[in-house]
Formats: sequence, structure tokens, C-alpha cells
Amino acid sequence: MVHIPKPPSAASPVQRSVPTSADVARLAGVSRATVSYVLNNTSAVRISEPTRRRVHAAAKELGYVPHAAARSLRAGHSRMVLMPAPAIPMGPLYGQFITDLQWALSRLDYTVVQYGTAGLRSDEAARAWAELRPVAVLVPGAELGPEGVAVLKRAGARAVVTFGPERVEGAHALLMDHHAVGHCAGRHLHARGRRRIGVIVPEEAGLETYSRPRLEGVRQALHGTDAEVTGLSLGYTEQSAAELAARWPELGIDAVFAYNDEYAMLIMRALQDEGLRIPEDTAVLGADDLMLGRLLRPRLSTIHIDLPSGRDLAELVDRLVRDPGAATETHRMLGAAVVQRDSS
Amino acid sequence: MVHIPKPPSAASPVQRSVPTSADVARLAGVSRATVSYVLNNTSAVRISEPTRRRVHAAAKELGYVPHAAARSLRAGHSRMVLMPAPAIPMGPLYGQFITDLQWALSRLDYTVVQYGTAGLRSDEAARAWAELRPVAVLVPGAELGPEGVAVLKRAGARAVVTFGPERVEGAHALLMDHHAVGHCAGRHLHARGRRRIGVIVPEEAGLETYSRPRLEGVRQALHGTDAEVTGLSLGYTEQSAAELAARWPELGIDAVFAYNDEYAMLIMRALQDEGLRIPEDTAVLGADDLMLGRLLRPRLSTIHIDLPSGRDLAELVDRLVRDPGAATETHRMLGAAVVQRDSS
Repeated sequence: MVHIPKPPSAASPVQRSVPTSADVARLAGVSRATVSYVLNNTSAVRISEPTRRRVHAAAKELGYVPHAAARSLRAGHSRMVLMPAPAIPMGPLYGQFITDLQWALSRLDYTVVQYGTAGLRSDEAARAWAELRPVAVLVPGAELGPEGVAVLKRAGARAVVTFGPERVEGAHALLMDHHAVGHCAGRHLHARGRRRIGVIVPEEAGLETYSRPRLEGVRQALHGTDAEVTGLSLGYTEQSAAELAARWPELGIDAVFAYNDEYAMLIMRALQDEGLRIPEDTAVLGADDLMLGRLLRPRLSTIHIDLPSGRDLAELVDRLVRDPGAATETHRMLGAAVVQRDSS
Repeated sequence: MVHIPKPPSAASPVQRSVPTSADVARLAGVSRATVSYVLNNTSAVRISEPTRRRVHAAAKELGYVPHAAARSLRAGHSRMVLMPAPAIPMGPLYGQFITDLQWALSRLDYTVVQYGTAGLRSDEAARAWAELRPVAVLVPGAELGPEGVAVLKRAGARAVVTFGPERVEGAHALLMDHHAVGHCAGRHLHARGRRRIGVIVPEEAGLETYSRPRLEGVRQALHGTDAEVTGLSLGYTEQSAAELAARWPELGIDAVFAYNDEYAMLIMRALQDEGLRIPEDTAVLGADDLMLGRLLRPRLSTIHIDLPSGRDLAELVDRLVRDPGAATETHRMLGAAVVQRDSS
């Protein structure tokens, strides 16, 4: 660990004075209203070109930038789209999706703010978000309840959109139904002749919203067949994987759906270290279709998860913001398809 | 790709009225000032317990939450720490660091806002950040210049802190000197008897701020020895890796420092597919010490990178905010140490 030295004492704070629009008005010899019209590009008021130039020059000289909060107070709403930062670590697939979405929203002139609310309970978090007066809120996972939705709407949010495995009353829903991922996995392993199917359930906190429906999806796909499904708890450590692999003979499992590609890499290595042949003794199936699966030997079979494009989603948010009185909408957002390689 | 259907037309917007502190005052039968004192927990003014209760009850009934922007306008500053979201994809090591830092700052009662500025040039970005009137700005990478620092300070930011490989004039610097990572790699490979050392330089945009000093660090470590250092351009695709591996015999390289563990996994697989033995024919060294390196065969040697704890860094930010007049500080933040496994 790198340590940062602390000085013995801190000097008393020195407050600089921040230039205001009144300072700009004084220097340019115009009214504060004129400064506001010019710097906010108001088209409703005609202002001569020399005046415009004088205001811009004065703002530049003083280093004045408008105050977003003051502007949104005047306008009654902001262009801020709030996206709470997820409280659980998200994989590279989801990270890319968020980056694309942010880009597309900023192209539509929204300001995307990601707000960390680590440690707040759901209703406290919604109040903290509401204080920022966002025009739209995009909440991943299961971090918002119906009360929170109501708080946000009363605070002026024109669109509250959840994306995750379940609908939340009062909010638009981008349903990411992870049952479909499990269903797809179950059908594939059954079609490959496997009958004793293990499903990895990560021990890491926060992942159960995804792992539970995936496990249920496998069960549903195999319901009424001669296959047997077993949930297998696994922590993301080599030791946990070695312990699970050591129990393999008693478990009598011939295929494992490993939650995602990273857990698949972990359990496949532990099974190989136990002397098991993949896929002859046990088939291994991941999910997310990451690069690393193609680099493993045998190459990892996986479930490719199809997310909507950031652009489509940004356009949806924009449409919902323009029509805050419309009924809540539900869109199914997740496609799932097997990518068969050599491990299954 | 999952597509979101667009309805043929959108109804006209319906604007709900947002409850204000005036509504709360009216319902509670008190002044707006009293509402403000109660809801902002002002200790300077004595307010009777029954009045307090009446205000809280009225706020709850109306669903009123204070407006953070209005509060920060009154206070003249916010508790907002702005962290621009990095424009380039960051690995899991950095992601965990950011999560820890956010957590620690929120424990010190700061609100951490991550703000995506995809597509803005450096000086535009600084102006956009300044409009939010953050009390502190933490900027990763090379996304801010001296002009931007000045804009932020004039807009009231009490601490502007950059973290990355270089200092920026006027800002505090958390120097993450990636020369040290390369230096450590070069020394290790030389000590293992390697003399023709390749250094992977990722082709992906934005990584050159990290890859360039790492390459230079290897060169510095081996300056004046009999070893030869060659930069090797590599894209993060199997094809790029296969093409590079096919050139291995003409390159005559006996060790490769692969930028990080993920590129190391990619090039090691391609070299193995070409029939090369690791480490006998070519040593492979990664960086970041990720789990995946321990799961590869041979187990991947790596450079462990030591970042400061989120808590230490949060305390530093808090101290700088309390002392805005102090001279700019520079802290070196990166420790580097070899973790030798079986690939080198």
C-alpha cells in the first residue's frame, strides 16, 4: 500500500471570490439580463452582434462560466440524466454498454451524471438522487422501489427508467430477463446429451439478482425431461474453485453452466487441475462471450448476450422525457444465443 | 441487436407541478425560512420540537425534497466531488480503486458525481465541469490542461487534483508514474537472462499515456546493458496477436513485457499456437496481477501495481478542500513489484 503523508496542521482556508454574471454585466456595460440572454444563447431576444461580442469578451476576461444549478433553477428542470453507479462490480460487457449509452445521450444534449450512492438504502438513495433534480433517472439493478419512483417523479423527473430483471411500479422498465440466458444454457447442454447439470451460483454479494433467474431458467428449460439440475455455490477465488472441483466425483455432474465466462475460466481450470477432461468428462458453458473464452483451451462455449445499442436506448429516454404523461412502457432488452466452441 | 420500437407519435408533454418549500411552509403554517432551517438541520437557529415535527410532516405529505442546486447556491459551494468518467476503458484494477475512493468520500459527506464528457475537447470539458460548481475535481489521465485548471478554480473549486503520469500546472498531482512499472519489468527480464526484449504497445486509442512511459521505463532499466528493447504494436484481437506471433522468428525476441495481464494472455496464447514454449523459448510478463494470470498455464508472471487506498486518498482530498490557498502538492502514488510465477 502506498501511503500519503499528512502534514501536521492545515492553514486556514482562503476563499477566492468567484466571478458572477453581475461582474460580467458591469465590465461589459450591459444589464445582467443581457448577459444571461447572450451566454445562454436565448433566441427569443434580439441582441446586437457588438453587444454579444462585448459580453463574451468580458466573460472570457473574468473567467466566468454559467452556473448549471442557477440555470436549471430558472428553467425549472435540467438536462441531467442521472445514472446511479452500480453498487456491484459490473463486467466488461456491461461497462461497454454504459459507455455507449453515455456517448449517445450526450449527443442528444443531455448531461449524464453517474452518482455513487454506496452505503445508502434504497429510499435514502432515491431522495439523494431527487435533490439533484434530474430530468431523467436510469437505474440499473434492483436499487429502486415504487416509493423511490414516486419521490423522483414528485421532484420533477420526467422519466424514471429501471433496467434489470424485474419491473418497478410507476417506472418504465427495460426488462433484462436473465431467465432467457439460463433457458438457453439448459437447452443447449441437454441437446449435447448432458443429464446431470450443475449451475454455478456466485457467492459474491449483489449478483443474486442475475444468478437466481439464470438458475431458474435452466430449471424451466429442463422441467419434465430426465435431466437433473444442481445449484453450485462458488466464490471468485482459486481456493473455492479447488474445493468445489474436489467434490466433483460425489456430485456426479456431467455439465456445468458457470454463470459467466470469468467463473467458467475459474472452474474449468480447477476441474482440469483435478484431472478431468473438458468436455469429455464435464462440459463447461460460460456467458457474456468475452475475448478470454476464445483464448482458453478448449475454447469456451458461451451464451452471447445481446444488449440494445446505446443509441436506441438514448432515443428511447429522449422520447420518454418529451412525453412524461404517457403510460409506463416495458421493453424486453435481452437477447441470448449459444456460441458453441469446444468446451461443450 | 435488440431493437426498441418507436411509437408513431408522442403526445404533448404534461408538466406536473413540483412541490416547493413555499408549499411546505403553507401547509405547516410557518415561514419559508423556518422550513429551510428545519430541513437543512441548521443548528444556528432554535426551533421548537412541535414546529420541527409539523414541517417534517408537511414535507412528507407533499413529497418535498430539498433542491441540492438551490442549497449550493445559498451556501456558495457544494459538497460535490466531480470525477470525470475516463474516456478510455479502464481495467478491473482501476475500477476497484474508483469504487473504494467513492465509498470513502461519501463517508466524509461528499457527494461523488461521475460526469461523462465523451466527445468534448479538454477546455470545453473543463468549462462543462465548472458549470456544476464542484468543491473538488479529481481528473484521471491527461484530460485537463493548465487553462482548464484555472477555469475550475475561478468557478470555486477548492481543490483540483489530477491523477496520471504527469503534473498539470496549478493542480495538485497524484503522480502515477508508469516508468516505474516498465523499469521493474525490464530489470526482472534481464535478471532472468533475457537479452532481446519485446514490449507490447497496445494499438487501442487512449492507452498511450500508460504504454509510452512503460516502454521508456524498460529502455531506461536496460540502458548500458547488452540487452536490446523492441516496441511491438498489438491490437486487442486474436488476428493481430496471430500476425505478431507469426513474425516471432524474424524478430528473434526471447522475452515479452505485454503491457498488462489481458494483453499477456492474448499474446501468450498466440505464441503457444505457433508452437513456442513459454518460458523456454520466450518469457511472458504481464502487469496488474489479475486473477486470470493465476489461471493460465504456465501461470503468468506479472507486475503487481500498488495503488493508494481509497480512504487515504479521500482524506487527502478533504484536507486539500479545507486549505484551498495552500501550495500545490505532488504525491507519488504507484508502487510496482514483480510477482514471479512460471512464465518468466
